Amino acid sequence: MLKKYIEEYISFCYTKIKIERWLDVKKYVYSFNEGNKEMKELLGGKGANLAEMVSIGLPVPRGFTVTTEACNKYYEDNQIIDDTIKKQIFRYLDFLEEATGKELGSSKNPLLVSVRSGAPVSMPGMMDTILNLGLNDEVADAMTRITNNKRFVYDSYRRLIMMFADVVMGYDRDLFDNELDNLKKEKNVKSDTELTDEDMYNLTVNYKEIYKKLSGKDFPSDPREQLIKAVEAVFASWNNERAIVYREMNDIPSTWGTAVNIQEMVYGNLGDTSGTGVAFTRNPATGEKKLFGEYLINAQGEDVVAGVRTPESIEKLKDIMPNVYDEFNKICQILENHYKDMQDMEFTIENGKLFMLQTRSGKRTGQAYVKIGVDMVNEGLITKEEAILRVNPNSINQLLHPTFDNEELKKATIIGTGLAASPGAAYGKIYFNAKDINVAKKNNDDAILVRTETSAEDIEGMRDANGILTIRGGMTSHAAVVARGMGRCCVSGCGNLTVDPINKTLTTKDGDILHEGDYISLDGGTGKVYRGQIKTKEATISGEFKTFMEWVDDIRRLKVRTNADTPKDAIQAKKFGAEGIGLCRTEHMFFDKERIFNFRKMIVADTKKEREEALKLILPYQRDDFEKLFEAMEGEPVIIRYLDPPLHEFLPKTNDEINILANSLKLSFNELKTRIDSLKEFNPMMGHRGCRLGVTYPEIVVMQTKAVIEAAINVRKKGIDVKPEIMIPLVGEVSELKYIKSIVCKVADKILTTTNSNIKYEVGTMIELPRACLIADELAKIADFFSFGTNDLTQLTYGFSRDDASKFINEYKKKGILEHDPFTTIDQHGVGKLVKLAVKKARDTKKNISLGICGEHGGEVKSIEFCDEIGLDYVSCSPYRVPIARLAAAQAKIKNS
Amino acid sequence: MLKKYIEEYISFCYTKIKIERWLDVKKYVYSFNEGNKEMKELLGGKGANLAEMVSIGLPVPRGFTVTTEACNKYYEDNQIIDDTIKKQIFRYLDFLEEATGKELGSSKNPLLVSVRSGAPVSMPGMMDTILNLGLNDEVADAMTRITNNKRFVYDSYRRLIMMFADVVMGYDRDLFDNELDNLKKEKNVKSDTELTDEDMYNLTVNYKEIYKKLSGKDFPSDPREQLIKAVEAVFASWNNERAIVYREMNDIPSTWGTAVNIQEMVYGNLGDTSGTGVAFTRNPATGEKKLFGEYLINAQGEDVVAGVRTPESIEKLKDIMPNVYDEFNKICQILENHYKDMQDMEFTIENGKLFMLQTRSGKRTGQAYVKIGVDMVNEGLITKEEAILRVNPNSINQLLHPTFDNEELKKATIIGTGLAASPGAAYGKIYFNAKDINVAKKNNDDAILVRTETSAEDIEGMRDANGILTIRGGMTSHAAVVARGMGRCCVSGCGNLTVDPINKTLTTKDGDILHEGDYISLDGGTGKVYRGQIKTKEATISGEFKTFMEWVDDIRRLKVRTNADTPKDAIQAKKFGAEGIGLCRTEHMFFDKERIFNFRKMIVADTKKEREEALKLILPYQRDDFEKLFEAMEGEPVIIRYLDPPLHEFLPKTNDEINILANSLKLSFNELKTRIDSLKEFNPMMGHRGCRLGVTYPEIVVMQTKAVIEAAINVRKKGIDVKPEIMIPLVGEVSELKYIKSIVCKVADKILTTTNSNIKYEVGTMIELPRACLIADELAKIADFFSFGTNDLTQLTYGFSRDDASKFINEYKKKGILEHDPFTTIDQHGVGKLVKLAVKKARDTKKNISLGICGEHGGEVKSIEFCDEIGLDYVSCSPYRVPIARLAAAQAKIKNS
Repeated sequence: MLKKYIEEYISFCYTKIKIERWLDVKKYVYSFNEGNKEMKELLGGKGANLAEMVSIGLPVPRGFTVTTEACNKYYEDNQIIDDTIKKQIFRYLDFLEEATGKELGSSKNPLLVSVRSGAPVSMPGMMDTILNLGLNDEVADAMTRITNNKRFVYDSYRRLIMMFADVVMGYDRDLFDNELDNLKKEKNVKSDTELTDEDMYNLTVNYKEIYKKLSGKDFPSDPREQLIKAVEAVFASWNNERAIVYREMNDIPSTWGTAVNIQEMVYGNLGDTSGTGVAFTRNPATGEKKLFGEYLINAQGEDVVAGVRTPESIEKLKDIMPNVYDEFNKICQILENHYKDMQDMEFTIENGKLFMLQTRSGKRTGQAYVKIGVDMVNEGLITKEEAILRVNPNSINQLLHPTFDNEELKKATIIGTGLAASPGAAYGKIYFNAKDINVAKKNNDDAILVRTETSAEDIEGMRDANGILTIRGGMTSHAAVVARGMGRCCVSGCGNLTVDPINKTLTTKDGDILHEGDYISLDGGTGKVYRGQIKTKEATISGEFKTFMEWVDDIRRLKVRTNADTPKDAIQAKKFGAEGIGLCRTEHMFFDKERIFNFRKMIVADTKKEREEALKLILPYQRDDFEKLFEAMEGEPVIIRYLDPPLHEFLPKTNDEINILANSLKLSFNELKTRIDSLKEFNPMMGHRGCRLGVTYPEIVVMQTKAVIEAAINVRKKGIDVKPEIMIPLVGEVSELKYIKSIVCKVADKILTTTNSNIKYEVGTMIELPRACLIADELAKIADFFSFGTNDLTQLTYGFSRDDASKFINEYKKKGILEHDPFTTIDQHGVGKLVKLAVKKARDTKKNISLGICGEHGGEVKSIEFCDEIGLDYVSCSPYRVPIARLAAAQAKIKNS
Repeated sequence: MLKKYIEEYISFCYTKIKIERWLDVKKYVYSFNEGNKEMKELLGGKGANLAEMVSIGLPVPRGFTVTTEACNKYYEDNQIIDDTIKKQIFRYLDFLEEATGKELGSSKNPLLVSVRSGAPVSMPGMMDTILNLGLNDEVADAMTRITNNKRFVYDSYRRLIMMFADVVMGYDRDLFDNELDNLKKEKNVKSDTELTDEDMYNLTVNYKEIYKKLSGKDFPSDPREQLIKAVEAVFASWNNERAIVYREMNDIPSTWGTAVNIQEMVYGNLGDTSGTGVAFTRNPATGEKKLFGEYLINAQGEDVVAGVRTPESIEKLKDIMPNVYDEFNKICQILENHYKDMQDMEFTIENGKLFMLQTRSGKRTGQAYVKIGVDMVNEGLITKEEAILRVNPNSINQLLHPTFDNEELKKATIIGTGLAASPGAAYGKIYFNAKDINVAKKNNDDAILVRTETSAEDIEGMRDANGILTIRGGMTSHAAVVARGMGRCCVSGCGNLTVDPINKTLTTKDGDILHEGDYISLDGGTGKVYRGQIKTKEATISGEFKTFMEWVDDIRRLKVRTNADTPKDAIQAKKFGAEGIGLCRTEHMFFDKERIFNFRKMIVADTKKEREEALKLILPYQRDDFEKLFEAMEGEPVIIRYLDPPLHEFLPKTNDEINILANSLKLSFNELKTRIDSLKEFNPMMGHRGCRLGVTYPEIVVMQTKAVIEAAINVRKKGIDVKPEIMIPLVGEVSELKYIKSIVCKVADKILTTTNSNIKYEVGTMIELPRACLIADELAKIADFFSFGTNDLTQLTYGFSRDDASKFINEYKKKGILEHDPFTTIDQHGVGKLVKLAVKKARDTKKNISLGICGEHGGEVKSIEFCDEIGLDYVSCSPYRVPIARLAAAQAKIKNS
């Protein structure tokens, strides 16, 4: 019977459409039977999937979708719905009325509809649903007459008023909820289902009064006015604060817009044979192949998620409505087979009749992504390629970090919640500055660094801590960015805690005070902060995850290297599958306190002799570090970038530091201060750095070459293979590269000849200046390899100082001037053009030149796709992003083939 | 007879060359009859012109040239002359010996030669001449026997020793000169011609002793050793300090190298029928068509310029050697007709026989360049195009500035000499800081700013002064650069004066003290500083200069606009032929003290309201300035660039300034300090500036648009035409331009509609980010015009911060890594590629889009040639460079067609 009902509706609409001519007018409205699942861009996710369900014969209440283009038109027209669009909406409403035999606002056979938003991708922050639209006093009377169910009618009516007030008018929903709560208290009942028809009627009257008080007007009794206002509210919600923030965080263009679905109501609140629920075809947390969901009897829409009553597990439905359960189970099967993916569904049961209100591919954890993917391949449902394409690479991040033991977690006390800034789980004693952390580290204590916010001077402490907690700062704060780079767990912006760094205390919202040395535990995946010590378990790549990553590696073309400055990072990255080091920043090897002292001597040296003496002290450290890196990488290539940053970054800052250094150098405080001041620059990012240091102070190049080559020889002696690749940074002129390369080769070849060693080394350059891209053909003649440093390349191509751009970049995103932060996702349109140009010039000159990328884009999914497309040989990223990059590379290969 | 002698030599050499085979060996030596004037690159200027003179039958002593390639080989071989080259030199020496019948070092018929350097362009700082090479004791004996002129022989010998010691060995020449002076005193004679043969002999003996004392060795008696050492000395002098500095200043590549000319000696010191001289075919100072030169009887080479004796005017030669004079006059005629240019010649008369030792196109003043050019066109000797091509555009700079009255100048006392940092002549009372200058200005006093060195805070003072004098700093010091930009006369680095800014005194080397308010006069064209007040006369474009510039304007395709921020600059530029304003930097309009105060209020504003209030105060200034600019330009287009620099550049710096501003804003010192600190940036050049200000603070755009359009309306009311062109700076994204343009148009159109005005304005953008070049096609859809801001584009393409690059850029030039400073001459290879790309994309999108350049390259000759080549519509430069740019544009047109 249901099937017939739908077929009739379909044939009806088609006939109507044939009669109507939209030829001269843009089509802004689609009936559900006019769409399909591929039309998400136009109809939104919800609309496209409703249409798809209709097309495969599933029971869906009839309705139509107002397109995303209508939403864009609304914004073009200064937030007014154009008459053409209104006309089309009402025309389709006419169809719906004819098909259902009901009429909006009729006192004979009234039609009620739901209005729901539906963007191309599912987005929180968008307008919620409005149900029961079309009700007014007369309609309510009529419906009471027809259904003989006053409780149902006024339950529906009071819901409409509340939702309309909340969603369309933006009034405080609590005012209405309080009314309901008070009534329940008054009547001494626990659940709204225990309220009577009179209670519901009175509630409706009260709601109307509250509405009038808030708006100064009566609740609109014209159903068509209600409808247009609801559509407007959906469109307007596209640009509300929450939606904008969400889009920014998820890189969703503001130009997509949202669609609106208008649909005949089916009622879950008709009594005990009715109900509503949500379900997943498989478990979205673990991936287990088993129906997973909840429902409520005698309830509407949001009641399930709103927690009005405790919902029942979907299993229970089997007992109380076996037929409905069986049908639902069958539909789940159909949907999974049809979509070939786990589905997240909403349904309503009206008097024992099942209706599907929504289906979509379900959100899930990284673990579930992988398990479901591997299972479905084994079930023959999808190919390996499809399984790979489906997993959001970022989601596997969760699988790479330690997690808390679930049993322990249940017992723990949450003392605060901040932003999930960098994933992983960690416990430790709290310390309030980097120095104390270093001491704790020496005592082998597990430590958590707690700061109001972090800055560069905290780096050492962050490195030595198990986790980082900050009170201020967002997802892109210093703490968050550095922690993610280090793979260190971090909760940032935890505003409900207070730090007193002087007295070394951490105070909770409730006034509890924790002192230095007290244990806390951080969950960087949820942002939760716990009191005490919760056991963690290490992440391993095993089981389905291992299988999955093997498929990934079989498919991808791009190699994945890692950016690693320490042996620890290198070892971690190797475990995660890194195929070499793409970037070792030698200057990062000097953050250590002892080392920085000698490094500073080198920087402030006034003569070549002074400088060479300081370099002599530095050489052993570097050689030692390089040995450990070579050992860790076991014969995989290791790119060592020669000294790059503006030297003054490493200068002593406090008077104490200056005094100590001055004493050691036998200089007066003022003499040293003058030297330090003379090193300051107006725009250090474009100053005396990179290969410019090597050109002006060739002795640095000499020292670094010695360290690399001697380290390589020592490691080779242990029987371990080595592939050193020396990278000259910030080259913009061929002659710079020639000059430095000649020094490198002279020094290296001399050592190799003297020691009679046979080690092959390469000399390449980082392509990070626009000019380097423009002369890449000439550079390729000299260089054995290129590595694109897209961080600097982006800075210079845009003229955006990364350190300063936050001042305007957020405003830019808000105003829609930038769709993406170009430091996160490579700007294909500008920076990418330069990279492509350089790749072409390089390959035309030297076909087999090795080309890679080591900017932060090397670990970002969209950018990796671009790197595959333009034919780079590898990407390089931080250790914890290596598996993500491997997956992204496989996806790119599939997409680009 | 002379002709025969030369012909014989030629035919002789040819025969020899036919016999010899150089087939397998690179040819490093050319006989004079193997070359011609086109071979300057290989043979150097001197060698090529000697060859040319030989080829047109002029009397030239026989000889040959070692090529510039030999010089480069010498440097490739680590400063050793390769045996192949030595062999070739000696082979050609053999030819010379056979041809002359003399032999180097022979005691029968000895050959003496001169050795002279000769780079492709004439270069001071290169090795001076060595004459009489080949003399030793035996040769001297032999020559005395042969010539019977002992005085001549030992005069020659002592000269050789002195020149060799000076030039080859680098000893102090004064040691030898003193000996000569002492001898003259002892003998009580005034001139060296009065010394006897015995005197000369003794001098020779003394010189040899001095030489031995200095070198620890005897003066080399082997003439071939003398020769090779002399050649080496020439090669080595290519890289001496003076030569390097000169090349840097004149953008001569270090790879050119120098040639060496080895030539049979002819003797001007044989007695009263011999002599030597230099002459120009026309007057090199004024351009007058009249032989101009000097000579000395019984003298050698450098005596004329060295001032040993006072030389006679060339006119005098007519009386004492009428035949020689006639012949010389005839040769001058031949040379001018042959070279079609004024010649600068050296000649020697040996026993009444005239020999030409050198000819080259003569250096001359800008005035002479122009006059000679115009005259030669009128004489039918050259075309207008040739006349135009010949004038170094920079040389006409001298014609644009005031000059001192010549009569007055003769009477004046020089009190110091510094660098001719910025041309022009000025007098005024001396003041020692910008503030005092401002006061003087208000009293209508002529003022000269005297500072040890200047910095940004002196700008206002420099603006109000007639001239600037600094004690420290070179040609590219702050004072020099800013003064040239302003067209203000400046003498910099005048180290023989001392400044006491506290007591306000200027002390000369002799201890004379000048006080505040005393008059001095500065000649920025010579670097001389005079006591007192010397009358000046204004420059005018008249006479031949006017004719010349008319030809220039007839020929050129590129328009020339000016960069002008003040009405004064605009008026000056218009006088110099500017065809509009290519860049008005609106932020420069706020340097004034009163204005900066309100501007600062705007910068530190915390809310839009505060900002708008401050902007209201600024609007009238801007409107007023724009009116004056429009009036000055009389209907020519005026590009107004909207606010560009990082705002914090304008922030108060001293505590006093902060206090005053804080009071006015009713903020505490600390509150304001915090706001100011929050505006600081790490890399301001890539920070919150340019259109980014307009996007974040659209109210600034609104204010500036009001100012532009209201000013235009007001000026139009006076019956003066206006063409405002609004330029949005630092655009990197199309949406930035769209966003700001929409504000501009909204504001402008509203004012125009309200006032019923009909003014056409354009909105364009500055192309100064690499990304802007890459998306120029998209920008061209929105922009009415582009102006290339090649200063910033160079910074970003190279990643060179202009403010910091001096730390390494000199080292880069020294090491040959950069040939030119890319901030001076546009980097065609990198930056130029981006500009070309942008031009193509722009023209492909919008054929008639107006394209110009307003970076400092717009006033630089080579860069202008590039701008013409790639099809820009105009260049824009500072007012005093407008005529130079007009000339450069004409030259470019001729070269590029």
